[in-house]
Amino acid sequence: MSLRGALLVAQAGGPSCVINSSLYGVIAEAGGRPEITALLGARHGIEGVLKGDFIDLAAQDPEDILGLKRTPAAALGGCRRQLNSADPDDGDIRRLLAILARYDVRYFIYNGGNDSMDTALKVHQAAAAAGYKLRVMGVPKTVDNDLVGTDYCPGYGSAGKYLATIVREAALHNESMFTSEPVTILVTVGRNAGWLPAACSLARRADNEAPHIICFPEVPFRKADFLAKVNNWRQRIGGAFIVSGEGLVDERGDYVMVKTGGVATDGFGHPELGAVGDYLKALIEENLGLKTRVIVPDISQQAAMHCAAAADVAYAELAGRQAVKGALEGLNGLMSTITVNGREIGSGYVPLATVANAERPLPPAFIDSAGDFVSGEFFEYIRPFIQGTVELPRDDNGLPLFVRLRGRQA
Amino acid sequence: MSLRGALLVAQAGGPSCVINSSLYGVIAEAGGRPEITALLGARHGIEGVLKGDFIDLAAQDPEDILGLKRTPAAALGGCRRQLNSADPDDGDIRRLLAILARYDVRYFIYNGGNDSMDTALKVHQAAAAAGYKLRVMGVPKTVDNDLVGTDYCPGYGSAGKYLATIVREAALHNESMFTSEPVTILVTVGRNAGWLPAACSLARRADNEAPHIICFPEVPFRKADFLAKVNNWRQRIGGAFIVSGEGLVDERGDYVMVKTGGVATDGFGHPELGAVGDYLKALIEENLGLKTRVIVPDISQQAAMHCAAAADVAYAELAGRQAVKGALEGLNGLMSTITVNGREIGSGYVPLATVANAERPLPPAFIDSAGDFVSGEFFEYIRPFIQGTVELPRDDNGLPLFVRLRGRQA
Repeated sequence: MSLRGALLVAQAGGPSCVINSSLYGVIAEAGGRPEITALLGARHGIEGVLKGDFIDLAAQDPEDILGLKRTPAAALGGCRRQLNSADPDDGDIRRLLAILARYDVRYFIYNGGNDSMDTALKVHQAAAAAGYKLRVMGVPKTVDNDLVGTDYCPGYGSAGKYLATIVREAALHNESMFTSEPVTILVTVGRNAGWLPAACSLARRADNEAPHIICFPEVPFRKADFLAKVNNWRQRIGGAFIVSGEGLVDERGDYVMVKTGGVATDGFGHPELGAVGDYLKALIEENLGLKTRVIVPDISQQAAMHCAAAADVAYAELAGRQAVKGALEGLNGLMSTITVNGREIGSGYVPLATVANAERPLPPAFIDSAGDFVSGEFFEYIRPFIQGTVELPRDDNGLPLFVRLRGRQA
Repeated sequence: MSLRGALLVAQAGGPSCVINSSLYGVIAEAGGRPEITALLGARHGIEGVLKGDFIDLAAQDPEDILGLKRTPAAALGGCRRQLNSADPDDGDIRRLLAILARYDVRYFIYNGGNDSMDTALKVHQAAAAAGYKLRVMGVPKTVDNDLVGTDYCPGYGSAGKYLATIVREAALHNESMFTSEPVTILVTVGRNAGWLPAACSLARRADNEAPHIICFPEVPFRKADFLAKVNNWRQRIGGAFIVSGEGLVDERGDYVMVKTGGVATDGFGHPELGAVGDYLKALIEENLGLKTRVIVPDISQQAAMHCAAAADVAYAELAGRQAVKGALEGLNGLMSTITVNGREIGSGYVPLATVANAERPLPPAFIDSAGDFVSGEFFEYIRPFIQGTVELPRDDNGLPLFVRLRGRQA
């Protein structure tokens, strides 16, 4: 089973505040293993892989490597680029195989979401087709928590904890302004999945507390129902705090708002979702005459290290370690997973082919019968992943300090 | 000088995360003073004053009163309503004087921004014109930091610290995505004043770190210059993190984007500012073809108790206490202030008439010569106000716990 060569790790897709903890797990697990002759990090995912743009992870300051566990974003750089083919005759694949051979890469660890697992799968297939000995393992990452085959995606707990924190705070603000600005909308990321809007429910501790209405991408958006609910909360308590996913769809399954023109698709070819907050605001102001504020945390929810959950950091590290462990044991073409079995949280593996390009929506059991809040089951699910705080070193002004990796070329 | 009667306190305008610390200061200073026969809080500022919608602040749980110092938003409720006249024959003023007399209110403490100080001034003028013995004192509040006559506005330090924290985090995210989403824009509140955009500069610790470009409302916005700067950063380091105030104006002094239609003015009659982030994003994407993300923290920056500066909380309390102290000593028609004299920070008073409706822009000396970053002098200025952290009690999920005042009617 023993395979000797370099380990190449890359981060892909949009980062989270714990993707560097997975990188730490990879480095920590690979360090000192005699089979691993070099420890390389590709810059900007597959883009750096194709260019041989690597940094030597074994040459970093050990303090910086430890610091990865408290540094948000992708220390190696993320990317939105995918491989279009696994055909050994494809130009990218030829480049890929040449680079892997040049650096004698035998372990390929790719940390990302469902698009990125498709890329990892293509690397795996291409190496197999070319007869190049390579063990390819994926590591799950996405604040959206929508990967198939894993019960949890590192990054979700911290993003959810941050969002719930600012919802609890902003909702008090909203409530204190009910007589003049009675409605607030907070829009999360997550595309078609409602996991992040669901996490905002943690802010509510008593009936009548925010969030009052959660708009899930999984529940068809009906204008009249929505307006009736907003009006109902206005009558009952004086206003409403609304949380919405970005990928709301109508009863026909069409996005309620898709942006056109400009740079309107991302590198993966997905349409850029329109400003659903502006859409809901206009709907409320025009139909109910209620002044509405809109909060769009955007990438600040993916980068919110100052609200990170210690549990999330730990599971991110575990997912990274398990990928390397599996590869060293001879596994190939799999993604490490975080598993939930009752109160037991563990790890396992799932084929990359199962994860690639698929999405796991919020299960119906996690949504309440009215379709605008979570169920008790959801709270049971999320609780373990948001536990614990992460102490951050601070500068003279009390702002958190982060690390950067050194060196551009290995 | 001794005047016996009830003290009525109200909070007005949009809240901050420390306006309740000023309320705490008012309550703590007034408590046990024999001249003060009752301690009343009006709900939603002048709206509650005109309706006699009061709660008994002396009857609250002492733990809740202490909890005000770690609770964001306005515990009594804020408002956007002003008085239109100080004429004793005006309907509102007649109601006001009747209510004050009914509750034997002799001390009137109004905590808010420049619009609210105009209301406090009208209360003062109306009482004087009617020969009703009343001591009116203002307490400064605004995250915008733009009140005239005080060197500092409680709320600014905490909002600035929160923004600088998320800028430092999101900028790492942005940097790690330079190859696919090279530009991020964060939009602060603050209308015509650039104090909050300026505070984001605290995120930068080294050359080339974010924020790369700050758009101040005080510096006329020139499209071509702006695009050249963005492009320059793209060439130099691969992308740019931009912070913008909301009230950008062109060389003619017109807002670059004003929203029309819908509920487009606030209760003070100010035009609702358009989404300057969307404006800048479209400009960059259409002219430079660089994909751009937009972060709009909106009221979450005003409510960010979890990032509050202990110094800001302390100065908010001081401002509240000084207003009550001054009133008890016979002062009238003034607002308490926070003063900066070299390294010495103290407090004083300024006439309400000086503060009412006026704005204090970021001084030219705090903006660098290129007009897109702060000067060293600015850092000297802001440092004392962002010091220290505030420990918050937490629930089982690690989310901060806040208090609510009890009782609707005194």
